[in-house]
Amino acid sequence: MARIDDLRKIATRLRIHSLRMTTAAGSGHPTTCLSAADLVAALFFSEMRWNTRDAADPANDEFVLSKGHAAPLLWAAYAEAGLIPFEELLDLRKIASPLEGHPTPRMPWVKAATGSLGQGLSVGAGLALAQRLDKSPARTFVLLGDGECAEGQVWEAAAAAAQWKLRNLVAVVDVNRLGQSDPTMHQHDLAALARKFRAFGWNAVIVDGHRLVRILAAFKKARRPSKPTVFLARTLKGKGVSFIEDRNGWHGKPLKADELERALAEIGSMPEIDAQRLVHKPAKPVRKKRTYVAQGLPRTAYAEKTATRLAYGNALLALGRLDPSVVVLDGDVKNSTYADKFFAAFPERSFQGYIAEQNMIGVGMGLAARGYIPFMASFAAFLTRAHDQVRMAAYSFSNIKVCGSHVGVSIGEDGPSQMGLEDLAMFRPIPGCVVLYPSDAVASEACVAAAAAHKGLCYLRTSRPATPILYRPDEAFPIGGSKVLRRSDGDAVTVVAAGVTVHEALKACDALKKEGLGLRVIDAYSVAPLDRETLRREIAETGGRAVVVEDHYAAGGLGEAVAEALAGRAALAHLCVRELPRSGKPDELLERYGISASHIVRAAKELLGR
Amino acid sequence: MARIDDLRKIATRLRIHSLRMTTAAGSGHPTTCLSAADLVAALFFSEMRWNTRDAADPANDEFVLSKGHAAPLLWAAYAEAGLIPFEELLDLRKIASPLEGHPTPRMPWVKAATGSLGQGLSVGAGLALAQRLDKSPARTFVLLGDGECAEGQVWEAAAAAAQWKLRNLVAVVDVNRLGQSDPTMHQHDLAALARKFRAFGWNAVIVDGHRLVRILAAFKKARRPSKPTVFLARTLKGKGVSFIEDRNGWHGKPLKADELERALAEIGSMPEIDAQRLVHKPAKPVRKKRTYVAQGLPRTAYAEKTATRLAYGNALLALGRLDPSVVVLDGDVKNSTYADKFFAAFPERSFQGYIAEQNMIGVGMGLAARGYIPFMASFAAFLTRAHDQVRMAAYSFSNIKVCGSHVGVSIGEDGPSQMGLEDLAMFRPIPGCVVLYPSDAVASEACVAAAAAHKGLCYLRTSRPATPILYRPDEAFPIGGSKVLRRSDGDAVTVVAAGVTVHEALKACDALKKEGLGLRVIDAYSVAPLDRETLRREIAETGGRAVVVEDHYAAGGLGEAVAEALAGRAALAHLCVRELPRSGKPDELLERYGISASHIVRAAKELLGR
Repeated sequence: MARIDDLRKIATRLRIHSLRMTTAAGSGHPTTCLSAADLVAALFFSEMRWNTRDAADPANDEFVLSKGHAAPLLWAAYAEAGLIPFEELLDLRKIASPLEGHPTPRMPWVKAATGSLGQGLSVGAGLALAQRLDKSPARTFVLLGDGECAEGQVWEAAAAAAQWKLRNLVAVVDVNRLGQSDPTMHQHDLAALARKFRAFGWNAVIVDGHRLVRILAAFKKARRPSKPTVFLARTLKGKGVSFIEDRNGWHGKPLKADELERALAEIGSMPEIDAQRLVHKPAKPVRKKRTYVAQGLPRTAYAEKTATRLAYGNALLALGRLDPSVVVLDGDVKNSTYADKFFAAFPERSFQGYIAEQNMIGVGMGLAARGYIPFMASFAAFLTRAHDQVRMAAYSFSNIKVCGSHVGVSIGEDGPSQMGLEDLAMFRPIPGCVVLYPSDAVASEACVAAAAAHKGLCYLRTSRPATPILYRPDEAFPIGGSKVLRRSDGDAVTVVAAGVTVHEALKACDALKKEGLGLRVIDAYSVAPLDRETLRREIAETGGRAVVVEDHYAAGGLGEAVAEALAGRAALAHLCVRELPRSGKPDELLERYGISASHIVRAAKELLGR
Repeated sequence: MARIDDLRKIATRLRIHSLRMTTAAGSGHPTTCLSAADLVAALFFSEMRWNTRDAADPANDEFVLSKGHAAPLLWAAYAEAGLIPFEELLDLRKIASPLEGHPTPRMPWVKAATGSLGQGLSVGAGLALAQRLDKSPARTFVLLGDGECAEGQVWEAAAAAAQWKLRNLVAVVDVNRLGQSDPTMHQHDLAALARKFRAFGWNAVIVDGHRLVRILAAFKKARRPSKPTVFLARTLKGKGVSFIEDRNGWHGKPLKADELERALAEIGSMPEIDAQRLVHKPAKPVRKKRTYVAQGLPRTAYAEKTATRLAYGNALLALGRLDPSVVVLDGDVKNSTYADKFFAAFPERSFQGYIAEQNMIGVGMGLAARGYIPFMASFAAFLTRAHDQVRMAAYSFSNIKVCGSHVGVSIGEDGPSQMGLEDLAMFRPIPGCVVLYPSDAVASEACVAAAAAHKGLCYLRTSRPATPILYRPDEAFPIGGSKVLRRSDGDAVTVVAAGVTVHEALKACDALKKEGLGLRVIDAYSVAPLDRETLRREIAETGGRAVVVEDHYAAGGLGEAVAEALAGRAALAHLCVRELPRSGKPDELLERYGISASHIVRAAKELLGR
């Protein structure tokens, strides 16, 4: 039982670190660290097998702290493992420290930012899938709180993990009974939680979360499961300090200096122990895979009208042939987004996640964290379901590629619930997020290639209707670029468009030409970063007059992007969808909501005072 | 068994209508209507008690079609009930018809727009809560598909309904085995679904969804449950038409004219039946409650620095005293958003939904659909979790009030996962959505009152830090207004700010005054609708120079709103958070991310070429 004694010492050290760190910072969540200290000691210094010299070793067991507010405990555990100097722990939450209030990969052992609750299990499922693809015998451990088990995403992840038979995924729930403002839904009724996980296809084990001998025995017994396994650990929030233990009202409150003194007196002095030597290394090495990152994607020669979403599917297929690190996730719409082409060709790299967009993004983050390039598509409207997950992917510096199809009123009869009209406003605010919006099939393929080659979060916006081909197969579409499609001397107004509205702009240009009026037409396929330089130059050349036209709501889209880029430099007319739309035929809707060629013609004339 | 024969005839009529409607429209989802036709016939014309003369009768059983793509079936059922002229059914999906591709309340019997799957059970839970508050013996029925049971929100709703003991909530799952692109997760393993619902605290009944006698018997037997009840109905997609029945690849495909002919030949001619006489009326009337819609909310006299979120809590409390129709929902952050004040005073109108933001919005929609005014708050960052639900609330013309607290980098040490930096970009695009962002406690209270009095979706943005009091207690804050806080002759630059940056702007104004430079300062508390007129006028008066400063990412917020409003009329400097932020002290972060007084000073000088 020497190990048990050692682990007990480590757990005590973790508690002392967590208390000191949060008091020094003057904020943070010490009580949630104290409840999970024994569990983390048992995981990091006994159950997990990991190479502390290489966070990217594919033989490593992975760890995700889904209950991200226990960050001090995580930092303390990494310090005990020799990965953070002890003296830096007291820099918690300081502006220059990577030890943030909630975990982010600014500390490189963190595989995904957490702190928005209920997301870690999806990331864990993605890491476990990657381990399977890597043929690694390693496992993924996710530490959750009981409060976050109210989040639906936990059950999306649980269902998917069971469906995918992720035997290498292990969840540990720190059931400390107390949420932020109230006791949790099930408090210490661990059987209620066990029933839920079992019904979702998991092996569920109830354990005393403060008895190390029981914890280790439970871990050991469940090492060869036929399903994903969850340990439901009965714990006490604030465990070890009498005046905060199991008491409501102590969430997110550091101890004051005198309280800390009393607490440390109760806990006793810092035990001496070299925790590093306890870390279990991986049993056998796993070969790192080379990833190719698609270059020179072969392009299709399109002869007739094609939907950009269809071209997305073609490009994914080509990409799959070129680059074995490309994987594809679906939320049961792959026959609409055309991801089904990839699914048919590469079933082993294709994952059906059913109708669960939040989990889809989280799983993608897990796959990306181990070097895969996940493409995920749904109707753009339904990606709003995963807004928080996309937000957290940004804070995770995650290399995920998200495609939203069926954008705008141009989808037609299915009606407003199916129309992506806010997706640009969802993706554009994210600093560094690339947003591409192709207007034809050639551009769509090029955008997929650009997204794959770019390291970082990319969003690709595709349309439902078939649109004419505008570009030659070898046309280049660099990120941050734009295309001037029509230009002649003496153009009076510039039209900035993207996607389906490019075709409306071209029609408007043709119509006005007959009246002797020149329109310059720009395809702003790179919505973010926007090609500000070209736009400024071209619009200046047309007398500082521009019409921006987009199949999107007024706020947060191309129109406001252009307005901000040109502030003070141009008179802008902004054509966009300004009311809640309804079912109808695509052309009728473009007309009714003011983004058709006829409206562009009218807006251009108005700018010219005609 | 006369009723069974009648219901069978009605089901046949519903099938014929659904097939004809979708073929006439040339799009839609006939097969999912055919699977649910017997269930809907049994519900509408036998089990439910409703007054077809008044959609707002509080004695009515409520119905929510969560699987919104079965809209033709819903329209057909309402036609059979005498609420839609039969001849109008063939206008399905036409631009002038309220019979949209997916249900919206443009047809007044629809209580919430559906079509983004997995949301209906939350709305149903809200309707059932409202029925309980109304002391109505009525029940709420929600028809789901099996595919959408993969959505986590279904399990958020299931858990909450069990927790709230909603015995008057009945779910019916049309388990037709086939999703859009693949068979569903559990296909016809109805026991697997039953295990899940039972583990979540429901009474689960498995039934043959095409045997009307069994359906009615099951309904009858489960009429006095101690818990919410779900009927898991085994059905076949495309039931009744041999060449589409139970076949993959027929999702969302209408029959061609010749296929329709073959299908109708199989089904037989339209049976004669007067369905209207079968509708069961409510057993006893329920008194309609008067709602007061808060006017003249008493204001607090604030003496010292107060956080706008705290004033939100105070205002909710005052509102609760004034208006019994105000209800409040929480996602276990009420001690941070200060909704806890209302919870303590009005427990019977307060609903703890635990950490489940999607369900919180959906439940609010259900309450609002029966005349309640629900206020819901969470950290603004976590409201992104419910983006899709907020989107659907807009299409439901729902009168919900959403508050996002802890916005921007000004929250400080908790770090980026907790910072609302994209919430304006989430709410501003929604046509008609009011967005209010108070800068002091007085404004915050006034904004709560304005939101309560306004009919429609409102978003209120509150901040974490205590901020100085700027306004007198009787100051008016109309929706669409703004406040010119500093003005003198010869002002050189206008600063447009909101929330915490108003205080930075005032500091900048004071600093520049010493240098003999006048700044005009505008508090743009009404972000949407924006006070375009005042902004244009004031900025024109300061030489067309403006600095917009906001604690929000660059895209979709106040800066772009102002840029779009002023296009061509002003030179704008836009100060905002342009990179992924990190943990730190609030003041440090305002400085580091470029939105503090010193940055405003610099930007103003740059605009003046100094």
